[in-house]
Amino acid sequence: MTYCVGLLLNDGMVMLSDTRTNAGLDNIATYRKMFQFEVPGERIIVILTAGSLSITQTTIAQLREAIEDPEATPETSILQAPTMLKVAEIIGSTLSRVRASVDDKLATMRQGASASLIVGGQRKGGAMRLFLVYPEGNFIEATEDTPFLQIGEHKYGKPILDRVVRPQTSIADGQKAVLLSMDSTLRSNLSVGMPLDLAVIDRDAMRVTMARRIEAGDADFRTMSEAWSNALRDSFVKVKI
Amino acid sequence: MTYCVGLLLNDGMVMLSDTRTNAGLDNIATYRKMFQFEVPGERIIVILTAGSLSITQTTIAQLREAIEDPEATPETSILQAPTMLKVAEIIGSTLSRVRASVDDKLATMRQGASASLIVGGQRKGGAMRLFLVYPEGNFIEATEDTPFLQIGEHKYGKPILDRVVRPQTSIADGQKAVLLSMDSTLRSNLSVGMPLDLAVIDRDAMRVTMARRIEAGDADFRTMSEAWSNALRDSFVKVKI
Repeated sequence: MTYCVGLLLNDGMVMLSDTRTNAGLDNIATYRKMFQFEVPGERIIVILTAGSLSITQTTIAQLREAIEDPEATPETSILQAPTMLKVAEIIGSTLSRVRASVDDKLATMRQGASASLIVGGQRKGGAMRLFLVYPEGNFIEATEDTPFLQIGEHKYGKPILDRVVRPQTSIADGQKAVLLSMDSTLRSNLSVGMPLDLAVIDRDAMRVTMARRIEAGDADFRTMSEAWSNALRDSFVKVKI
Repeated sequence: MTYCVGLLLNDGMVMLSDTRTNAGLDNIATYRKMFQFEVPGERIIVILTAGSLSITQTTIAQLREAIEDPEATPETSILQAPTMLKVAEIIGSTLSRVRASVDDKLATMRQGASASLIVGGQRKGGAMRLFLVYPEGNFIEATEDTPFLQIGEHKYGKPILDRVVRPQTSIADGQKAVLLSMDSTLRSNLSVGMPLDLAVIDRDAMRVTMARRIEAGDADFRTMSEAWSNALRDSFVKVKI
Protein backbone atom coordinates (compact mmCIF):
# COMPACT_ATOMS: atom_id res chain seq x y z
CA MET A 1 0.00 0.00 0.00
CA THR A 2 0.94 3.62 0.48
CA TYR A 3 0.38 6.57 2.73
CA CYS A 4 0.18 10.10 1.31
CA VAL A 5 -1.18 13.24 2.95
CA GLY A 6 -1.62 16.84 1.86
CA LEU A 7 -2.44 19.91 3.98
CA LEU A 8 -4.05 23.12 2.74
CA LEU A 9 -2.99 25.78 5.25
CA ASN A 10 -3.42 29.54 5.14
CA ASP A 11 0.36 29.93 4.69
CA GLY A 12 0.82 27.22 2.07
CA MET A 13 0.57 23.53 1.30
CA VAL A 14 2.47 20.63 2.87
CA MET A 15 2.68 17.29 1.03
CA LEU A 16 4.17 13.99 2.24
CA SER A 17 4.39 10.56 0.63
CA ASP A 18 6.08 7.26 1.38
CA THR A 19 7.81 5.21 -1.34
CA ARG A 20 6.95 1.57 -0.64
CA THR A 21 5.23 -0.52 -3.26
CA ASN A 22 4.51 -4.19 -2.94
CA ALA A 23 3.14 -6.96 -5.11
CA GLY A 24 2.65 -9.42 -2.27
CA LEU A 25 4.69 -9.31 0.92
CA ASP A 26 7.67 -10.95 -0.82
CA ASN A 27 7.99 -8.37 -3.57
CA ILE A 28 8.70 -4.97 -2.09
CA ALA A 29 10.27 -2.06 -3.95
CA THR A 30 10.85 1.68 -3.67
CA TYR A 31 9.11 4.05 -6.10
CA ARG A 32 8.66 7.78 -5.89
CA LYS A 33 4.99 8.71 -5.39
CA MET A 34 5.37 12.51 -5.50
CA PHE A 35 5.50 14.30 -8.86
CA GLN A 36 5.99 18.00 -9.60
CA PHE A 37 4.81 19.99 -12.59
CA GLU A 38 6.06 23.55 -12.52
CA VAL A 39 6.16 26.74 -14.58
CA PRO A 40 8.24 28.77 -12.12
CA GLY A 41 6.41 31.89 -11.01
CA GLU A 42 3.30 30.96 -13.03
CA ARG A 43 2.01 27.67 -11.65
CA ILE A 44 2.95 24.73 -9.46
CA ILE A 45 1.19 21.36 -9.36
CA VAL A 46 2.20 18.47 -7.08
CA ILE A 47 0.61 15.03 -7.48
CA LEU A 48 0.77 12.23 -4.87
CA THR A 49 -0.18 8.71 -5.96
CA ALA A 50 -1.63 5.61 -4.28
CA GLY A 51 -2.76 2.29 -5.72
CA SER A 52 -1.69 0.10 -8.59
CA LEU A 53 1.73 1.21 -9.86
CA SER A 54 0.82 0.30 -13.44
CA ILE A 55 -2.06 2.78 -13.27
CA THR A 56 -0.27 5.61 -11.49
CA GLN A 57 2.89 5.44 -13.64
CA THR A 58 0.87 5.41 -16.86
CA THR A 59 -1.30 8.28 -15.64
CA ILE A 60 1.73 10.44 -14.81
CA ALA A 61 3.36 9.49 -18.14
CA GLN A 62 0.23 10.44 -20.10
CA LEU A 63 -0.02 13.77 -18.26
CA ARG A 64 3.62 14.48 -19.22
CA GLU A 65 3.01 13.47 -22.85
CA ALA A 66 -0.01 15.75 -23.01
CA ILE A 67 2.13 18.64 -21.73
CA GLU A 68 4.91 17.99 -24.25
CA ASP A 69 2.57 17.43 -27.19
CA PRO A 70 3.20 20.23 -29.74
CA GLU A 71 -0.58 20.41 -30.17
CA ALA A 72 -1.28 20.71 -26.42
CA THR A 73 -4.25 22.91 -25.53
CA PRO A 74 -5.71 24.30 -22.29
CA GLU A 75 -8.12 21.36 -22.53
CA THR A 76 -5.35 18.72 -22.52
CA SER A 77 -2.26 20.12 -20.75
CA ILE A 78 -2.28 20.69 -17.00
CA LEU A 79 0.36 23.41 -17.52
CA GLN A 80 -1.99 25.36 -19.82
CA ALA A 81 -5.33 24.70 -18.08
CA PRO A 82 -6.91 28.02 -17.08
CA THR A 83 -7.79 27.01 -13.49
CA MET A 84 -6.82 24.45 -10.85
CA LEU A 85 -10.33 23.03 -11.19
CA LYS A 86 -9.62 22.32 -14.87
CA VAL A 87 -6.27 20.78 -13.84
CA ALA A 88 -8.14 18.41 -11.51
CA GLU A 89 -10.59 17.56 -14.30
CA ILE A 90 -7.80 16.71 -16.77
CA ILE A 91 -6.03 14.58 -14.16
CA GLY A 92 -9.31 12.90 -13.19
CA SER A 93 -10.24 11.97 -16.74
CA THR A 94 -6.70 10.72 -17.46
CA LEU A 95 -6.74 8.57 -14.30
CA SER A 96 -10.20 7.24 -15.08
CA ARG A 97 -9.22 6.31 -18.67
CA VAL A 98 -5.99 4.56 -17.61
CA ARG A 99 -7.72 2.75 -14.76
CA ALA A 100 -10.49 1.47 -17.03
CA SER A 101 -7.93 0.23 -19.56
CA VAL A 102 -5.81 -1.60 -16.94
CA ASP A 103 -8.97 -2.97 -15.33
CA ASP A 104 -10.09 -4.41 -18.68
CA LYS A 105 -6.77 -6.22 -19.07
CA LEU A 106 -6.96 -7.61 -15.52
CA ALA A 107 -10.57 -8.75 -15.94
CA THR A 108 -9.28 -11.64 -18.08
CA MET A 109 -7.56 -12.89 -14.89
CA ARG A 110 -10.61 -12.11 -12.72
CA GLN A 111 -8.64 -9.36 -11.01
CA GLY A 112 -9.05 -5.63 -10.72
CA ALA A 113 -6.86 -2.61 -10.01
CA SER A 114 -7.43 0.86 -8.71
CA ALA A 115 -5.60 4.07 -7.85
CA SER A 116 -6.27 7.49 -6.35
CA LEU A 117 -4.35 10.76 -6.33
CA ILE A 118 -3.88 13.90 -4.27
CA VAL A 119 -3.41 17.02 -6.43
CA GLY A 120 -2.27 20.29 -4.89
CA GLY A 121 -1.31 23.48 -6.60
CA GLN A 122 -1.75 27.13 -7.43
CA ARG A 123 -1.60 29.22 -10.59
CA LYS A 124 -0.82 32.93 -10.72
CA GLY A 125 -3.94 34.92 -9.85
CA GLY A 126 -5.73 31.92 -8.36
CA ALA A 127 -6.05 30.39 -4.90
CA MET A 128 -4.13 27.37 -3.62
CA ARG A 129 -6.29 24.27 -4.06
CA LEU A 130 -5.97 20.68 -2.89
CA PHE A 131 -7.96 17.80 -4.43
CA LEU A 132 -8.40 14.09 -3.84
CA VAL A 133 -9.05 12.39 -7.21
CA TYR A 134 -10.94 9.09 -7.00
CA PRO A 135 -10.30 6.09 -9.30
CA GLU A 136 -13.43 6.95 -11.31
CA GLY A 137 -12.06 10.44 -12.04
CA ASN A 138 -14.38 12.46 -9.79
CA PHE A 139 -12.79 14.45 -6.99
CA ILE A 140 -13.31 16.29 -3.71
CA GLU A 141 -11.53 19.36 -2.42
CA ALA A 142 -9.99 20.32 0.93
CA THR A 143 -11.81 23.15 2.70
CA GLU A 144 -11.47 25.25 5.85
CA ASP A 145 -13.42 22.65 7.81
CA THR A 146 -11.28 19.77 6.59
CA PRO A 147 -7.93 21.20 5.54
CA PHE A 148 -6.23 17.83 4.90
CA LEU A 149 -6.63 14.94 2.45
CA GLN A 150 -5.18 11.43 2.71
CA ILE A 151 -4.86 8.46 0.33
CA GLY A 152 -3.72 4.88 0.95
CA GLU A 153 -3.40 3.59 4.52
CA HIS A 154 -5.02 6.68 6.02
CA LYS A 155 -6.54 5.44 9.28
CA TYR A 156 -3.50 5.02 11.55
CA GLY A 157 -2.36 8.59 10.95
CA LYS A 158 -5.75 10.32 11.00
CA PRO A 159 -6.21 10.86 14.78
CA ILE A 160 -3.19 13.21 15.07
CA LEU A 161 -4.35 15.23 12.03
CA ASP A 162 -7.90 15.45 13.41
CA ARG A 163 -6.49 16.88 16.63
CA VAL A 164 -3.93 19.41 15.43
CA VAL A 165 -4.41 20.50 11.81
CA ARG A 166 -6.37 23.71 11.24
CA PRO A 167 -6.12 26.26 8.38
CA GLN A 168 -4.20 28.60 10.68
CA THR A 169 -1.61 25.90 11.57
CA SER A 170 1.88 27.15 10.63
CA ILE A 171 3.90 25.50 7.86
CA ALA A 172 6.41 24.27 10.45
CA ASP A 173 3.66 22.69 12.58
CA GLY A 174 2.07 21.29 9.41
CA GLN A 175 5.33 19.53 8.55
CA LYS A 176 5.52 18.16 12.08
CA ALA A 177 1.90 16.96 11.90
CA VAL A 178 2.31 15.07 8.60
CA LEU A 179 5.61 13.52 9.75
CA LEU A 180 4.06 12.33 13.04
CA SER A 181 1.02 11.06 11.15
CA MET A 182 3.40 9.12 8.87
CA ASP A 183 5.40 7.91 11.89
CA SER A 184 2.28 6.28 13.42
CA THR A 185 1.49 4.66 10.07
CA LEU A 186 5.04 3.34 9.57
CA ARG A 187 4.98 1.76 13.04
CA SER A 188 1.65 0.01 12.59
CA ASN A 189 1.66 -1.01 8.92
CA LEU A 190 4.45 -2.83 7.07
CA SER A 191 3.11 -1.87 3.64
CA VAL A 192 4.13 1.76 4.19
CA GLY A 193 7.89 2.39 4.21
CA MET A 194 10.78 4.84 4.15
CA PRO A 195 12.22 6.85 2.44
CA LEU A 196 9.71 9.71 2.50
CA ASP A 197 9.24 12.67 0.18
CA LEU A 198 8.27 15.94 1.85
CA ALA A 199 7.40 19.13 -0.04
CA VAL A 200 6.23 22.59 0.97
CA ILE A 201 4.60 25.08 -1.40
CA ASP A 202 4.42 28.52 0.20
CA ARG A 203 1.33 30.57 -0.62
CA ASP A 204 1.75 32.60 -3.83
CA ALA A 205 5.29 31.26 -4.42
CA MET A 206 4.16 29.26 -7.52
CA ARG A 207 7.00 26.82 -6.89
CA VAL A 208 8.05 24.10 -4.45
CA THR A 209 9.73 26.16 -1.75
CA MET A 210 11.14 23.17 0.15
CA ALA A 211 11.58 19.56 -0.99
CA ARG A 212 13.33 16.94 1.04
CA ARG A 213 13.83 13.19 0.76
CA ILE A 214 13.97 11.63 4.22
CA GLU A 215 16.02 8.43 4.09
CA ALA A 216 15.55 5.42 6.39
CA GLY A 217 18.47 6.38 8.64
CA ASP A 218 17.66 10.11 8.76
CA ALA A 219 18.89 11.39 12.14
CA ASP A 220 16.38 14.26 12.42
CA PHE A 221 13.42 12.02 11.65
CA ARG A 222 14.61 9.40 14.12
CA THR A 223 15.11 12.04 16.83
CA MET A 224 11.61 13.41 16.21
CA SER A 225 10.13 9.92 16.18
CA GLU A 226 11.82 9.01 19.48
CA ALA A 227 10.88 12.32 21.10
CA TRP A 228 7.26 11.73 20.05
CA SER A 229 7.32 8.17 21.43
CA ASN A 230 8.70 9.43 24.73
CA ALA A 231 6.22 12.30 24.88
CA LEU A 232 3.34 9.88 24.21
CA ARG A 233 4.55 7.53 26.93
CA ASP A 234 4.94 10.44 29.37
CA SER A 235 1.43 11.65 28.47
CA PHE A 236 0.11 8.13 28.96
CA VAL A 237 1.58 8.01 32.46
CA LYS A 238 0.22 11.45 33.33
CA VAL A 239 -3.38 10.89 32.19
CA LYS A 240 -5.60 9.49 34.96
CA ILE A 241 -8.63 7.24 34.59
CA MET B 1 -18.97 -0.86 12.15
CA THR B 2 -17.54 -1.60 15.55
CA TYR B 3 -14.39 -1.40 17.58
CA CYS B 4 -13.54 -4.08 20.14
CA VAL B 5 -10.20 -4.81 21.78
CA GLY B 6 -8.93 -7.40 24.25
CA LEU B 7 -5.64 -7.45 26.19
CA LEU B 8 -3.94 -10.54 27.61
CA LEU B 9 -1.77 -9.23 30.45
CA ASN B 10 0.18 -11.12 33.09
CA ASP B 11 -2.24 -9.86 35.75
CA GLY B 12 -5.46 -10.50 33.83
CA MET B 13 -7.52 -9.64 30.79
CA VAL B 14 -9.04 -6.29 29.81
CA MET B 15 -11.90 -6.18 27.26
CA LEU B 16 -13.58 -3.14 25.72
CA SER B 17 -16.35 -2.81 23.13
CA ASP B 18 -18.45 -0.03 21.65
CA THR B 19 -22.21 -0.43 21.06
CA ARG B 20 -22.93 1.25 17.73
CA THR B 21 -24.50 -0.70 14.90
CA ASN B 22 -25.56 0.77 11.61
CA ALA B 23 -27.39 -0.35 8.51
CA GLY B 24 -26.48 2.66 6.43
CA LEU B 25 -25.64 6.04 7.93
CA ASP B 26 -29.32 6.80 8.50
CA ASN B 27 -30.07 3.72 10.55
CA ILE B 28 -27.98 3.75 13.71
CA ALA B 29 -28.75 1.80 16.87
CA THR B 30 -27.19 0.71 20.15
CA TYR B 31 -26.56 -2.99 20.76
CA ARG B 32 -24.42 -4.64 23.38
CA LYS B 33 -21.40 -6.39 21.81
CA MET B 34 -19.93 -7.91 24.99
CA PHE B 35 -21.32 -11.21 26.32
CA GLN B 36 -20.37 -13.12 29.47
CA PHE B 37 -20.62 -16.84 30.13
CA GLU B 38 -19.69 -17.70 33.68
CA VAL B 39 -19.56 -20.61 36.12
CA PRO B 40 -18.34 -18.61 39.12
CA GLY B 41 -15.05 -19.94 40.43
CA GLU B 42 -14.84 -22.57 37.66
CA ARG B 43 -14.72 -20.69 34.36
CA ILE B 44 -15.27 -17.31 32.76
CA ILE B 45 -15.69 -16.63 29.06
CA VAL B 46 -16.21 -13.17 27.54
CA ILE B 47 -17.09 -12.75 23.86
CA LEU B 48 -16.84 -9.48 21.90
CA THR B 49 -18.57 -9.26 18.53
CA ALA B 50 -18.06 -7.33 15.27
CA GLY B 51 -19.83 -7.54 11.95
CA SER B 52 -23.35 -8.32 10.80
CA LEU B 53 -25.74 -8.16 13.77
CA SER B 54 -27.89 -10.97 12.33
CA ILE B 55 -24.84 -13.25 12.43
CA THR B 56 -23.49 -12.24 15.84
CA GLN B 57 -26.88 -12.34 17.61
CA THR B 58 -27.70 -15.76 16.20
CA THR B 59 -24.23 -17.08 17.08
CA ILE B 60 -24.57 -15.93 20.71
CA ALA B 61 -28.14 -17.31 20.85
CA GLN B 62 -27.02 -20.71 19.54
CA LEU B 63 -24.13 -20.83 22.04
CA ARG B 64 -26.65 -20.16 24.84
CA GLU B 65 -29.07 -22.80 23.52
CA ALA B 66 -26.25 -25.34 23.37
CA ILE B 67 -25.38 -24.57 27.01
CA GLU B 68 -29.00 -24.92 28.15
CA ASP B 69 -29.68 -28.06 26.11
CA PRO B 70 -30.40 -30.92 28.59
CA GLU B 71 -28.26 -33.12 26.33
CA ALA B 72 -25.33 -30.68 26.28
CA THR B 73 -21.90 -32.35 26.15
CA PRO B 74 -18.29 -31.12 26.45
CA GLU B 75 -18.33 -31.21 22.64
CA THR B 76 -21.25 -28.75 22.33
CA SER B 77 -21.39 -26.53 25.45
CA ILE B 78 -18.73 -23.89 26.03
CA LEU B 79 -19.41 -24.19 29.78
CA GLN B 80 -18.52 -27.90 29.69
CA ALA B 81 -15.67 -27.88 27.15
CA PRO B 82 -12.51 -29.28 28.77
CA THR B 83 -10.16 -26.50 27.59
CA MET B 84 -10.30 -22.89 26.34
CA LEU B 85 -8.98 -24.22 23.02
CA LYS B 86 -12.08 -26.41 22.76
CA VAL B 87 -14.22 -23.38 23.71
CA ALA B 88 -12.69 -21.44 20.80
CA GLU B 89 -13.35 -24.38 18.48
CA ILE B 90 -17.04 -24.61 19.48
CA ILE B 91 -17.46 -20.84 19.05
CA GLY B 92 -15.60 -20.94 15.72
CA SER B 93 -17.73 -23.72 14.28
CA THR B 94 -20.94 -22.05 15.50
CA LEU B 95 -19.93 -18.72 13.94
CA SER B 96 -18.90 -20.40 10.70
CA ARG B 97 -22.20 -22.32 10.43
CA VAL B 98 -24.34 -19.22 11.16
CA ARG B 99 -22.31 -17.05 8.80
CA ALA B 100 -22.65 -19.59 5.96
CA SER B 101 -26.40 -19.80 6.52
CA VAL B 102 -26.90 -16.00 6.53
CA ASP B 103 -24.58 -15.66 3.55
CA ASP B 104 -26.67 -18.16 1.58
CA LYS B 105 -29.81 -16.11 2.25
CA LEU B 106 -28.08 -12.87 1.21
CA ALA B 107 -26.68 -14.42 -1.98
CA THR B 108 -30.17 -14.19 -3.51
CA MET B 109 -29.76 -10.39 -3.25
CA ARG B 110 -26.13 -10.52 -4.47
CA GLN B 111 -24.99 -9.43 -1.03
CA GLY B 112 -22.84 -11.01 1.64
CA ALA B 113 -22.33 -10.71 5.38
CA SER B 114 -19.53 -11.47 7.77
CA ALA B 115 -18.61 -11.30 11.44
CA SER B 116 -15.66 -11.92 13.73
CA LEU B 117 -15.29 -12.40 17.48
CA ILE B 118 -12.81 -11.94 20.29
CA VAL B 119 -13.02 -14.69 22.91
CA GLY B 120 -11.22 -14.38 26.23
CA GLY B 121 -11.41 -16.60 29.23
CA GLN B 122 -9.97 -19.01 31.75
CA ARG B 123 -11.09 -22.27 33.32
CA LYS B 124 -9.92 -23.58 36.68
CA GLY B 125 -6.52 -25.24 36.30
CA GLY B 126 -5.88 -23.64 32.91
CA ALA B 127 -4.21 -20.48 31.68
CA MET B 128 -5.98 -17.29 30.59
CA ARG B 129 -6.37 -17.35 26.82
CA LEU B 130 -7.49 -14.75 24.29
CA PHE B 131 -8.59 -15.64 20.74
CA LEU B 132 -9.67 -13.81 17.60
CA VAL B 133 -12.20 -15.98 15.75
CA TYR B 134 -12.45 -15.31 12.00
CA PRO B 135 -15.71 -15.50 9.99
CA GLU B 136 -14.65 -18.89 8.61
CA GLY B 137 -14.34 -20.29 12.14
CA ASN B 138 -10.55 -20.54 12.33
CA PHE B 139 -8.79 -18.48 14.99
CA ILE B 140 -5.55 -16.97 16.22
CA GLU B 141 -4.39 -16.45 19.79
CA ALA B 142 -2.76 -13.55 21.62
CA THR B 143 0.81 -14.25 22.75
CA GLU B 144 3.58 -12.55 24.73
CA ASP B 145 4.81 -10.86 21.55
CA THR B 146 1.35 -9.55 20.62
CA PRO B 147 -0.70 -9.37 23.82
CA PHE B 148 -3.71 -7.64 22.23
CA LEU B 149 -6.35 -8.49 19.65
CA GLN B 150 -8.73 -6.11 17.83
CA ILE B 151 -11.82 -6.51 15.63
CA GLY B 152 -13.80 -3.95 13.62
CA GLU B 153 -12.33 -0.51 12.98
CA HIS B 154 -8.94 -1.42 14.41
CA LYS B 155 -6.52 0.90 12.61
CA TYR B 156 -7.14 4.26 14.33
CA GLY B 157 -6.53 2.80 17.79
CA LYS B 158 -3.63 0.52 16.97
CA PRO B 159 -0.68 3.00 17.27
CA ILE B 160 -1.27 3.63 21.01
CA LEU B 161 -1.55 -0.13 21.71
CA ASP B 162 1.61 -0.83 19.69
CA ARG B 163 3.46 1.71 21.83
CA VAL B 164 2.32 0.91 25.36
CA VAL B 165 0.81 -2.58 25.75
CA ARG B 166 3.16 -5.32 26.97
CA PRO B 167 2.35 -8.51 28.97
CA GLN B 168 3.74 -6.82 32.10
CA THR B 169 1.45 -3.76 31.67
CA SER B 170 -0.71 -3.36 34.82
CA ILE B 171 -4.49 -3.85 34.69
CA ALA B 172 -4.94 -0.12 35.42
CA ASP B 173 -2.64 0.87 32.55
CA GLY B 174 -4.32 -1.71 30.34
CA GLN B 175 -7.70 -0.08 31.00
CA LYS B 176 -6.21 3.30 30.22
CA ALA B 177 -4.67 1.98 26.98
CA VAL B 178 -7.90 0.44 25.63
CA LEU B 179 -9.92 3.55 26.56
CA LEU B 180 -7.43 5.87 24.81
CA SER B 181 -7.36 3.51 21.83
CA MET B 182 -11.17 3.70 21.73
CA ASP B 183 -11.06 7.49 22.19
CA SER B 184 -8.92 7.89 19.03
CA THR B 185 -11.32 5.63 17.13
CA LEU B 186 -14.44 7.47 18.32
CA ARG B 187 -12.94 10.79 17.22
CA SER B 188 -12.00 9.62 13.74
CA ASN B 189 -14.82 7.23 12.79
CA LEU B 190 -18.54 7.89 13.08
CA SER B 191 -19.45 4.21 12.81
CA VAL B 192 -18.03 3.56 16.30
CA GLY B 193 -20.04 5.08 19.16
CA MET B 194 -20.71 5.37 22.88
CA PRO B 195 -21.74 3.89 25.27
CA LEU B 196 -18.82 1.52 25.89
CA ASP B 197 -18.64 -1.76 27.80
CA LEU B 198 -15.45 -2.34 29.78
CA ALA B 199 -14.63 -5.57 31.62
CA VAL B 200 -11.65 -6.83 33.60
CA ILE B 201 -10.99 -10.48 34.42
CA ASP B 202 -8.26 -10.80 37.03
CA ARG B 203 -5.92 -13.77 36.63
CA ASP B 204 -7.28 -16.91 38.35
CA ALA B 205 -10.46 -15.13 39.50
CA MET B 206 -12.68 -17.20 37.13
CA ARG B 207 -15.15 -14.33 37.05
CA VAL B 208 -15.52 -10.79 35.70
CA THR B 209 -13.86 -8.79 38.48
CA MET B 210 -14.93 -5.39 37.13
CA ALA B 211 -17.60 -4.51 34.57
CA ARG B 212 -18.62 -0.99 33.71
CA ARG B 213 -20.85 0.63 31.12
CA ILE B 214 -19.45 4.03 30.14
CA GLU B 215 -22.30 6.27 28.95
CA ALA B 216 -21.96 9.10 26.43
CA GLY B 217 -21.87 11.80 29.11
CA ASP B 218 -19.55 9.91 31.51
CA ALA B 219 -17.57 12.55 33.41
CA ASP B 220 -14.51 10.35 34.07
CA PHE B 221 -14.23 9.32 30.43
CA ARG B 222 -14.61 12.90 29.26
CA THR B 223 -11.97 14.10 31.73
CA MET B 224 -9.57 11.39 30.56
CA SER B 225 -10.30 12.16 26.92
CA GLU B 226 -9.68 15.89 27.42
CA ALA B 227 -6.53 15.28 29.46
CA TRP B 228 -5.24 13.02 26.67
CA SER B 229 -6.06 15.64 24.02
CA ASN B 230 -4.23 18.31 26.01
CA ALA B 231 -1.27 16.02 26.68
CA LEU B 232 -1.06 15.20 22.96
CA ARG B 233 -1.17 18.87 22.02
CA ASP B 234 1.51 19.70 24.62
CA SER B 235 3.65 16.84 23.29
CA PHE B 236 3.12 18.09 19.75
CA VAL B 237 4.38 21.54 20.73
CA LYS B 238 7.39 20.10 22.57
CA VAL B 239 8.62 17.77 19.80
CA LYS B 240 11.07 19.50 17.45
CA ILE B 241 11.63 18.76 13.77
